[in-house]
Amino acid sequence: MHFARLLALWLFTALYLVAAERQPNIVIILADDLGYGDLSCYGHPTIRTPHLDRMAAEGMRFTEFYSAAEVCTPSRAALLTGRYPIRSGMCHDQFRVLRNRSLGHLPESEITLAEALKAKGYATGCVGKWHLGVWEFSPAGHPRKHGFDFYFGLPHSNDMDPSPFAPKGAGKLAEQQAAWWNAPLYRNEELIERPADLSTLTQRYTDEAVKFIQANQAKPFFLYFPHTYPHTPLFASKNFSGTSPRGLYGDVVEELDASVGRVLDTLRATKLAENTLVFFTSDNGPWLIMNQQGGSAGLLRDGKGSTWEGGMRVPGIAWWPGKIKPAQTQRTLACTMDLFTTSLKLTGAEVPADRSIDGLDIRPLLFGTGTVQRDAYLFYRGTRLMAARVGDYKAHFMTQAAYGQPKAEEHATPQLYNLRVDPSENFNIATNHPAVLSQITQAVERHRATLTPAQSQLVEFAPLPEKR
Amino acid sequence: MHFARLLALWLFTALYLVAAERQPNIVIILADDLGYGDLSCYGHPTIRTPHLDRMAAEGMRFTEFYSAAEVCTPSRAALLTGRYPIRSGMCHDQFRVLRNRSLGHLPESEITLAEALKAKGYATGCVGKWHLGVWEFSPAGHPRKHGFDFYFGLPHSNDMDPSPFAPKGAGKLAEQQAAWWNAPLYRNEELIERPADLSTLTQRYTDEAVKFIQANQAKPFFLYFPHTYPHTPLFASKNFSGTSPRGLYGDVVEELDASVGRVLDTLRATKLAENTLVFFTSDNGPWLIMNQQGGSAGLLRDGKGSTWEGGMRVPGIAWWPGKIKPAQTQRTLACTMDLFTTSLKLTGAEVPADRSIDGLDIRPLLFGTGTVQRDAYLFYRGTRLMAARVGDYKAHFMTQAAYGQPKAEEHATPQLYNLRVDPSENFNIATNHPAVLSQITQAVERHRATLTPAQSQLVEFAPLPEKR
Repeated sequence: MHFARLLALWLFTALYLVAAERQPNIVIILADDLGYGDLSCYGHPTIRTPHLDRMAAEGMRFTEFYSAAEVCTPSRAALLTGRYPIRSGMCHDQFRVLRNRSLGHLPESEITLAEALKAKGYATGCVGKWHLGVWEFSPAGHPRKHGFDFYFGLPHSNDMDPSPFAPKGAGKLAEQQAAWWNAPLYRNEELIERPADLSTLTQRYTDEAVKFIQANQAKPFFLYFPHTYPHTPLFASKNFSGTSPRGLYGDVVEELDASVGRVLDTLRATKLAENTLVFFTSDNGPWLIMNQQGGSAGLLRDGKGSTWEGGMRVPGIAWWPGKIKPAQTQRTLACTMDLFTTSLKLTGAEVPADRSIDGLDIRPLLFGTGTVQRDAYLFYRGTRLMAARVGDYKAHFMTQAAYGQPKAEEHATPQLYNLRVDPSENFNIATNHPAVLSQITQAVERHRATLTPAQSQLVEFAPLPEKR
Repeated sequence: MHFARLLALWLFTALYLVAAERQPNIVIILADDLGYGDLSCYGHPTIRTPHLDRMAAEGMRFTEFYSAAEVCTPSRAALLTGRYPIRSGMCHDQFRVLRNRSLGHLPESEITLAEALKAKGYATGCVGKWHLGVWEFSPAGHPRKHGFDFYFGLPHSNDMDPSPFAPKGAGKLAEQQAAWWNAPLYRNEELIERPADLSTLTQRYTDEAVKFIQANQAKPFFLYFPHTYPHTPLFASKNFSGTSPRGLYGDVVEELDASVGRVLDTLRATKLAENTLVFFTSDNGPWLIMNQQGGSAGLLRDGKGSTWEGGMRVPGIAWWPGKIKPAQTQRTLACTMDLFTTSLKLTGAEVPADRSIDGLDIRPLLFGTGTVQRDAYLFYRGTRLMAARVGDYKAHFMTQAAYGQPKAEEHATPQLYNLRVDPSENFNIATNHPAVLSQITQAVERHRATLTPAQSQLVEFAPLPEKR
């Protein structure tokens, strides 16, 4: 071989290896409706989560980590775009989330984390519940139209297309039949199973996630792994059914925990662990009206659907052996939108400059190199800005229980809580802190000034089929 | 020296050393009003407890550990005697606890853990809040009349002899003056400071505990270390004041945490760690009416004063390097009374056979060698048996909120909760589980058959002094 060609090959290989070393893999594992208090390492007495506990012991556990919305669709839109859902139109006061016949989807104009990383040469895969578009009615809503090379999973929640035989209400969910729920399982664009066997879903998701990692060792990858559970209806596979002291909900969470263990084991086995950031979190708080089959927000107030802490503060665990020091508790505020910005920064990608991005670069928190300056953190319920947090303080301009309070109560003087002293939001201290309230109000005005009205994507539906 | 005498000396020394090795030291550290959710390793987001977290990481964290009563005096009587307070008379429906002019005290007829271990050659020390007798009025109530060689601390809670200037009510407790509380600090029988400087109390307690350990390296010792805090009024020393994100309550708990760190460090430094069982727990749940200055029961219902879980389920951490395996979560029920029986077993002492002992030997749990068979666990409020737990299930025969519900509600059909599925006691499942209810009722009858009526020690008081 000619020397120059040999040199070129060598250079190419060397550059390729350096690039591979420099560009870390990103894995985001998202639970669905898992509450702040539902993991053993967050204080749950009977749910056993040894793999997540180990992940936390080897990495960083966040105590003030937020989802960017109180329900599924807007929360996922925010995570993948780094923007509050009010900016993308992926929220609505009445409909709240996409339904099985929704025509709307994540707009093409939005830049997802998958798109941004794909542009930097990443392999991109999504395994699990999408909930940002129903391609049966709107092909442009498919994950592969939003930056993912590979997709395996359900387009929406597992309860969204029930058969006429499915029972109504939480109390009847104990003895489940997968056929009731008629859930459609896709591989890429292909419908492979309907009704999907919901009891093996976590296991099959995990198989696909593991295969994706194994198949993409040669180049950097982004794996987005949004689980279907512990959203109800709950199903666990044979190995987990009836094993948890916490009952069916525990079976399901413990199976998720084992899934996380398999992902981390795969990264260890492939020697990719030290070049991979793994982040585990949840899309919103626990679905409390599901009773024993809903989770726990621990000491936090209310749950999914509300802008009280229990609705949006969720577990958050970061893992990256060799880069994130082990056994850290991180008490600084961070959120799912930060995963967008931080991932871009980690890969050397530019954060889009033509639009407002709400996520911040939290590398200083992860790597212990500094602090992060955040203005206000906003708590939206649909399109309504209910509350805002600045520093230790959260002001509620409006409050509304997740369920059972049909109309929001507006507060002429906002309710004010010091979340570090009073994480359960029990003691309104507004009267003694007018300066704090005014500081928060100003931060909210700064946020409002950045808003451009977006059409809601959640209001249009495919016509109902002819009666069968 | 004559050979026979030399041999005798050698034998004596050898036997002495073997005995010293075989008899482990026992250290019980008891917080006052610390809630189930108040430590970082039990899920509190802003209270930083690195030493207790490390203790748990090196040892065993219990998720279903109970105090034997819902308030101070009966809880402490039970811990030191291994018996429900109903047996010793250290409880009362109206008075609840001993007051600063109480004449009653732990009866001489009771055998304390200190007495039992002293009889086996142990040095015995008590540092902290006693609350089982006020020797100013009843000398027989002093810790040194109940088996302790050494005592340093306050006879009762820090709020029990307020000066006329002391403010009433929780809301006014923020800006404290130690002089308001007129707390008497004793070394053995000697009153050394009144009003005691409450801000340096934890620090001085810890100094005394450390000195006790250092002074008793030659023979086995029992150190009972019941802290005064985080019972209100709250005081922290200069190094901790204003440092915790959780505010004053956090300052105080973080100072307790540092105290635990100093005790464990002393055991490490003296090379006693591998021959010492240390147990950390709390006397009852958090005092919720103290608002921001009261603790958190985490996901558990209600707090101090109630027989809901929040009143009696508390943190419990066991530590014994080399004997208790590290990083274990123990989900089996255990309680403070078990510390009595287990300590006796560890030292080879006989458990008293002439009386009912309610504590069980939990060595199989600590050392991972087996299980523990327990009949019912009983939840008393004063002398009233409110609830009982058998296995996963807890039946409430009567319920009463800790505060604000003047009269207990009796339930013709008891309320029934599966505590492992529903630790927050939200979902009464009595109607579907008549067999479980009947099993619990039978266990309660077995318990009642062992009861001998005891005169309450909490009803007599020294006459008030002449008006000053």
